[in-house]
Amino acid sequence: MSFDIRRLLPFLDWARTYDRRHLTNDAVAAVVVTIMLVPQSLAYAMLAGLPPHIGLYASILPLVAYALFGTSRTLAVGPVAVVSLMTAAAAGSVATPGSPEFVAAALILAVESGLILTLMGLLNLGFLANFLSHSVISGFITASGVLIATSQMKHILGIKASGDTMPELVTGIAATIGGTNFITLGIGAAAIAFLFWVRKRLKPLLRRLGLPAGAADILAKAGPVFAVAASTALVAALALDQAGVKVVGAIPSGLPPLTLPVFQADLWLRLALPALLISIVGFVESVSVAQTLAAKRRQRIDANTELFGLGAANIAAGLTGGYPVTGGFTRSVVNFDAGAETPLAGVFTAAGILATILFFTPFFEKLPQAVLAATIIVAVFSLVDLGALGRTWRYSKADFAAMAVTIAVVLLEGVEIGIVSGVVVSLALFLYRTSRPHMAIVGRVPGTEHFRNVERHKVITGETVLSVRVDESLYFANARFLEDRIYDLIASRPAVKHVVLLCSAVNMIDASALESLEAMDERLKSAGVTFHLSEVKGPVMDRLKATHFLAHLSGRVFLSQAEAMAALDPACMAGQGGKAPVAVGA
Amino acid sequence: MSFDIRRLLPFLDWARTYDRRHLTNDAVAAVVVTIMLVPQSLAYAMLAGLPPHIGLYASILPLVAYALFGTSRTLAVGPVAVVSLMTAAAAGSVATPGSPEFVAAALILAVESGLILTLMGLLNLGFLANFLSHSVISGFITASGVLIATSQMKHILGIKASGDTMPELVTGIAATIGGTNFITLGIGAAAIAFLFWVRKRLKPLLRRLGLPAGAADILAKAGPVFAVAASTALVAALALDQAGVKVVGAIPSGLPPLTLPVFQADLWLRLALPALLISIVGFVESVSVAQTLAAKRRQRIDANTELFGLGAANIAAGLTGGYPVTGGFTRSVVNFDAGAETPLAGVFTAAGILATILFFTPFFEKLPQAVLAATIIVAVFSLVDLGALGRTWRYSKADFAAMAVTIAVVLLEGVEIGIVSGVVVSLALFLYRTSRPHMAIVGRVPGTEHFRNVERHKVITGETVLSVRVDESLYFANARFLEDRIYDLIASRPAVKHVVLLCSAVNMIDASALESLEAMDERLKSAGVTFHLSEVKGPVMDRLKATHFLAHLSGRVFLSQAEAMAALDPACMAGQGGKAPVAVGA
Repeated sequence: MSFDIRRLLPFLDWARTYDRRHLTNDAVAAVVVTIMLVPQSLAYAMLAGLPPHIGLYASILPLVAYALFGTSRTLAVGPVAVVSLMTAAAAGSVATPGSPEFVAAALILAVESGLILTLMGLLNLGFLANFLSHSVISGFITASGVLIATSQMKHILGIKASGDTMPELVTGIAATIGGTNFITLGIGAAAIAFLFWVRKRLKPLLRRLGLPAGAADILAKAGPVFAVAASTALVAALALDQAGVKVVGAIPSGLPPLTLPVFQADLWLRLALPALLISIVGFVESVSVAQTLAAKRRQRIDANTELFGLGAANIAAGLTGGYPVTGGFTRSVVNFDAGAETPLAGVFTAAGILATILFFTPFFEKLPQAVLAATIIVAVFSLVDLGALGRTWRYSKADFAAMAVTIAVVLLEGVEIGIVSGVVVSLALFLYRTSRPHMAIVGRVPGTEHFRNVERHKVITGETVLSVRVDESLYFANARFLEDRIYDLIASRPAVKHVVLLCSAVNMIDASALESLEAMDERLKSAGVTFHLSEVKGPVMDRLKATHFLAHLSGRVFLSQAEAMAALDPACMAGQGGKAPVAVGA
Repeated sequence: MSFDIRRLLPFLDWARTYDRRHLTNDAVAAVVVTIMLVPQSLAYAMLAGLPPHIGLYASILPLVAYALFGTSRTLAVGPVAVVSLMTAAAAGSVATPGSPEFVAAALILAVESGLILTLMGLLNLGFLANFLSHSVISGFITASGVLIATSQMKHILGIKASGDTMPELVTGIAATIGGTNFITLGIGAAAIAFLFWVRKRLKPLLRRLGLPAGAADILAKAGPVFAVAASTALVAALALDQAGVKVVGAIPSGLPPLTLPVFQADLWLRLALPALLISIVGFVESVSVAQTLAAKRRQRIDANTELFGLGAANIAAGLTGGYPVTGGFTRSVVNFDAGAETPLAGVFTAAGILATILFFTPFFEKLPQAVLAATIIVAVFSLVDLGALGRTWRYSKADFAAMAVTIAVVLLEGVEIGIVSGVVVSLALFLYRTSRPHMAIVGRVPGTEHFRNVERHKVITGETVLSVRVDESLYFANARFLEDRIYDLIASRPAVKHVVLLCSAVNMIDASALESLEAMDERLKSAGVTFHLSEVKGPVMDRLKATHFLAHLSGRVFLSQAEAMAALDPACMAGQGGKAPVAVGA
């Protein structure tokens, strides 16, 4: 996609063909999503350590901003669990939860992460998100789910406890568990049990009662709404808030405030790294949800343009009293399943939330916090995937290590250091691996011009030519390794007169490796061995041609390994039909 | 080399065959090296901000320790320029130069870096040094040379100025240049001119006078000794030290003291990173000198065992009043050229330095500091290689960037942060490069079974099979890139029924890339395209076999690309003789 006004304003794509059918579908989806989003927004704001109504503010203008600048037709933007947890940790590092400074820090985080996302979009830096491997993301989400569920236990027990890591949380709960409010615990436990039942059993039950699959699904997802309504009614009827059951309390009614985050350079600087991590994690979560949904309808999303959409949504959140937002999985799926056709569904959802905050806030005053905590606990339960540890272990020890380190550090030290550790470990293991490349002595597969590892295949080799395939680009970290291996191979094979380095897997030769190759050539020459290359790729060859290497090389550069062997050891290439003597390598 | 007592005590290798000829050669070399090493040790200690005699202490027991544990026959260990500069910066970050705490910090650095080197040896971590690319080392050495020469200007001018970076040094010199002592400047400038003349002109002159090449070379290298002797005599005769010419002063005579560095946990911790950097830089410098010399005599050095040798030398330096040491280039070459046969030459050199400190220290009392500074300036001049910038630029922009960043940060911010920046930049550029791999559509080179890029070669391709070679291992950083590219290629080629991914350059498929391949297979399948792999390497195939990927794959895995084409598009493989229609790719 070249530069194009539609890249900046992707809504032009769908606005031209918008018709009444779209309008109906979008409106229906918006009603469904609004009903689900209201309790979710209150709950996630509470998880972020913010007053519940901040969650509603974060679900209005950001949705409109995303509808204008985002490329996904069905992504539903707003507060999500993992980003709320990261906001709690980041704002908690500069202010006390509950204080006005804490709320101000959340605003700064939203604006800062909006600016970072927009800047990344301008600089085409969306690829940075690729450096978060699946294993690190999966470990991060699992560990965050455990942290989130544990952090909500205080609301279920009706106690005061805080902390950003498992040791802190567990110690905090253990120290205050004596003060458990049993009515709160009863409400919380009942809500958890009910929500799990809804999640696992309600849908099959509704299907058996004859409801169509789609409706059964949406009704099952509306479980939290029922829990909220029932528990609020119960608390109000029995005045349980007088008995120590903590409730949401009065929510200021009215339009979201216009907020301009204070500009304090040192505060912005201290929040810059957390904001960057929130941006990248939010971006990765959002893009993977959007791509999953887009693929189902053969639509495409443009990852780089998504940066503008999410950037705009976060700036909007920061300017209207919210906190960092991103595309959420559950609500996007609900939006999609409820039939949303275009981002206008998001605009209608925003209108629904706005109506809620203007007219319906009194209904939430007696909503028990324990029920919000229960909806969070049940929601994050699906994030925890400990089975991934076993699957990853079986496939790749390096991926397992990255995942395990991420989980351990997130749980023990916190979300930010945890995700950074995961990235560092996964990159370090990749670099370590490339620093000691696999190398194979190759011979010809009988009847073909194909050369493979003598240790794995029945192949034809000769005495005087040593063909070595090196399975990595040659760069500083492995240049000396290659040198040492070649010298070792030569030392144990006195009959060898030619070494052919098969470069089919060499995608780059950097300056350090070039010096190594020159040194090898010199040293092999003085030992009476000629050094050749074969199957050097175009881009690598272009580079080599700009140096003196090819002029000094004792041997030649062959287009293919077969050509090299035809020139250096014709006997090895004889017997195309596989009748030549076959030497099976040791 | 498996585990073996000779690995721990490599001197057993040469001690058995030691004879009188070896003894004579080693003794002669030791005399030559001792004469050169005395002024050099005084000078480098001064560069490190330490009293000059510390340099002599660092040239006694460390040499004996290296002789016992090192593997190079001719490496001469002791104070060197770059490590002295790093010591000055590191000790200067915790204490004031000239203070007893500064000397104590240097001792800690020596012991700590000795322990780090030994630990790296035990853990086989010698490969870590490979992560310093040629470009970073070259940039680091050049910038260090400039910093060192500039830092010595204060001694030539006879002023007080200090600093660890160019801006600090230049500001310091500018602020105090009014206090220049012109006699000092005269001596310093004359010494510099003389030493440059010796370096460039003396050897050819001596050859013309009929001296053999070897003797002329050694005499030319003894220039500093002559400068030291002549300037000391001059200062003593004219009592110039009374006229403000700073001299070395009284050197405590006697055996090196036994020192046990104070153990203060926080001080050791603060010096740990500098000690690690000193260890790695010293190790890299030492190993490259040792390997160069070993190659000339067809000897081998074992890089991992070298860690024990250098570790022992540094621990010895720390226990006998010295500071960090490593193998030096100039002195090792002199040792080698003077005919040293075994590390016993180092032991004899240590005895020579010991004799100097016991009996000859009064001779150095009137030695002007400006002359020591002149020997340093002339010595480091050969380290500065600005031409490398141009050569590297022409070969590789990534290598150039790493080198330029290293030089700039060393000069502007200091040696430690400079080398770390260089490593980070070079690794980041490597990772960036692997995150967007080169990909090529390939076709058959007529008359062969070899497949190459359609854009570079005249090759045969078909309409229904798209063969794509991806030139990189598949891992998290490029998994999505590959996915997007394949989708784009398919979207513009509606006739394609098969995609063959030619994996000759794929050395690894990690868990993230495996998920991408599964997603691609699913998506291609639903678009009516079959997905195949060819030339998958043994180690990669072993991994894939442990998963469900191969069972679900819509297509097949072919041993070679030729086999794939023979099965999927026989027309493309027809005409072995090159008579088939040739389609030249766009």
